[in-house]
Amino acid sequence: METLLLSLKDVRQALSMKEVISAIEEGYIAYYREKVQQPDIVSIEIPRNNGETDIKSCYNELNEIISVKVASGFYNNGKINHLPSMIGTILLYGGRTGAPLCIMDGSLITGIRTGAAGAISSKLLARKDSKTVAVFGAGGQARMQIYALCEVMNIEEVRVYSNNKEELPKYKQDIEENTKVKVILCDTVEKAMEGADIAISTTPSKKYYIDKSCVRTGMHIVAVGADMPGKNEWEPEVFRGAKIVNDSIAQCISRGETRNAIIAGVIKESDIYGEIGQLLAGEKPLRENDDEITIFDTTGMGIQDNVTAVMVYELAKRKGLGEYFEFI
Amino acid sequence: METLLLSLKDVRQALSMKEVISAIEEGYIAYYREKVQQPDIVSIEIPRNNGETDIKSCYNELNEIISVKVASGFYNNGKINHLPSMIGTILLYGGRTGAPLCIMDGSLITGIRTGAAGAISSKLLARKDSKTVAVFGAGGQARMQIYALCEVMNIEEVRVYSNNKEELPKYKQDIEENTKVKVILCDTVEKAMEGADIAISTTPSKKYYIDKSCVRTGMHIVAVGADMPGKNEWEPEVFRGAKIVNDSIAQCISRGETRNAIIAGVIKESDIYGEIGQLLAGEKPLRENDDEITIFDTTGMGIQDNVTAVMVYELAKRKGLGEYFEFI
Repeated sequence: METLLLSLKDVRQALSMKEVISAIEEGYIAYYREKVQQPDIVSIEIPRNNGETDIKSCYNELNEIISVKVASGFYNNGKINHLPSMIGTILLYGGRTGAPLCIMDGSLITGIRTGAAGAISSKLLARKDSKTVAVFGAGGQARMQIYALCEVMNIEEVRVYSNNKEELPKYKQDIEENTKVKVILCDTVEKAMEGADIAISTTPSKKYYIDKSCVRTGMHIVAVGADMPGKNEWEPEVFRGAKIVNDSIAQCISRGETRNAIIAGVIKESDIYGEIGQLLAGEKPLRENDDEITIFDTTGMGIQDNVTAVMVYELAKRKGLGEYFEFI
Repeated sequence: METLLLSLKDVRQALSMKEVISAIEEGYIAYYREKVQQPDIVSIEIPRNNGETDIKSCYNELNEIISVKVASGFYNNGKINHLPSMIGTILLYGGRTGAPLCIMDGSLITGIRTGAAGAISSKLLARKDSKTVAVFGAGGQARMQIYALCEVMNIEEVRVYSNNKEELPKYKQDIEENTKVKVILCDTVEKAMEGADIAISTTPSKKYYIDKSCVRTGMHIVAVGADMPGKNEWEPEVFRGAKIVNDSIAQCISRGETRNAIIAGVIKESDIYGEIGQLLAGEKPLRENDDEITIFDTTGMGIQDNVTAVMVYELAKRKGLGEYFEFI
């Protein structure tokens, strides 16, 4: 039997942000409705090479596909190995046979599906008149978040802050070339947060750098960076009294920003408002007034990879992309 | 960068049982010496399709390779889908970069490395004069165990029992064609155990079918079939007073035949003699007399896949096997 192989270039041709957003909305609802088996994330850490590999697997009853994503971050790659830091592979297997259907590059999908998640949360939870966005970090994910957000809201200004100042001009250039947004480079966290309606944090920081004092009434926060124990971007106090939504409560309390707020004693698990799939399913009110602070904590789920990769696979077959290989 | 793709046929050309046995011995020792990260096994079960998918991952510090095996068993495949029941893929990633080095069919490797494990245990623990082997089950693994055992001991007779009687003639034919062993087809468990020096169980049974009363003094038992909770081949009482060796104690007490004996109250975890890597490292006596009953319980480890697949990868590169694909 034949397995379809898709390179990064093939995947890029088969992806559109708009379609990814709606696929992921369906995936979140399926997860909430318990149509998804999503085993615990497997992590291998190799500190001496400044690297880690995560495995996110998922079986989606609705499309009957098992997905396995092997995603690595080796942070010396750029300097030493001339390779991207983030490398990934997604494998799709038939849920009736276990047969390998498709193996594709997973790096772009990880970026896009995470961007889409943030945008979905803003569509649901940010104030409708949101125009200004604070962004922390100026890497790939800081771009994806804005590309996705521009699909669902009319954003006018992005205020970006990064520790890594030399990344900023290229970030501004890329965002302004690809969207209608104006980018303001900020040299402090406080300046980035000035006037922001939405704030998106995408850094691998291990100590929080965004204080409660910068958070405005009515703001929507998208906490992307903290996805494993030890990572922290937001002062835990920010969570007090906020409407907290998780992609997966189980994951966010064990490895997300929500975990930090619970450990700090600022909130209890019962203070979490719900999962994003529950909101998408229409089972809970969204933002209820212009004053509340809403937080979406996302640690990234196998179901996002599943629905996005299946969409790419189907489209690639129709477009005749990729090559076939017979493993068996 | 290029990723090497190896089909089942390529893998077959690059494998030799003798080399697999010595690779796995080294792997077991590396595991015992804590040179290996081996995360928990991930399992997805799809009962409505009579299928399951397991993911075994491993980082081996000695070869600096991360391996991920996705192995499925869909037991209706033969009848309904004209596909093999056991399908697998092994992926190898560089431990310094996370780059995908090789993707290969994993079904043959799973079979061979499991056969090799049983043979290694017999070499260490069975009586040196062992000639007669009882085998339970007549599928792929029941073959591999004998092929591997014949590499390390002078076996003369295999006494095979299977629920599935129609498999037996072909089993006899295959073993007698590929080895010098004479195969006796047995229609009861008791007959298979008559005069056996070594007994190897390879079935997916959920209720034990081999009673303590059949177990002879001085016998070596290889318990292969029970590799997840709910599977059971041996009466727990068999473990009382035996010298019990595990591939991984952590795995065998949570999903192996050893677990059943602990749950039945026949043994405690402290009654386990040791891990096979510890014996291979020469740190504990092996069989100490001709009367003791020795048991090797194997649930299958990521490190076995790791060392076997890396051996195949290296050999395939030297022999020019397979094809290359550029994912990134």
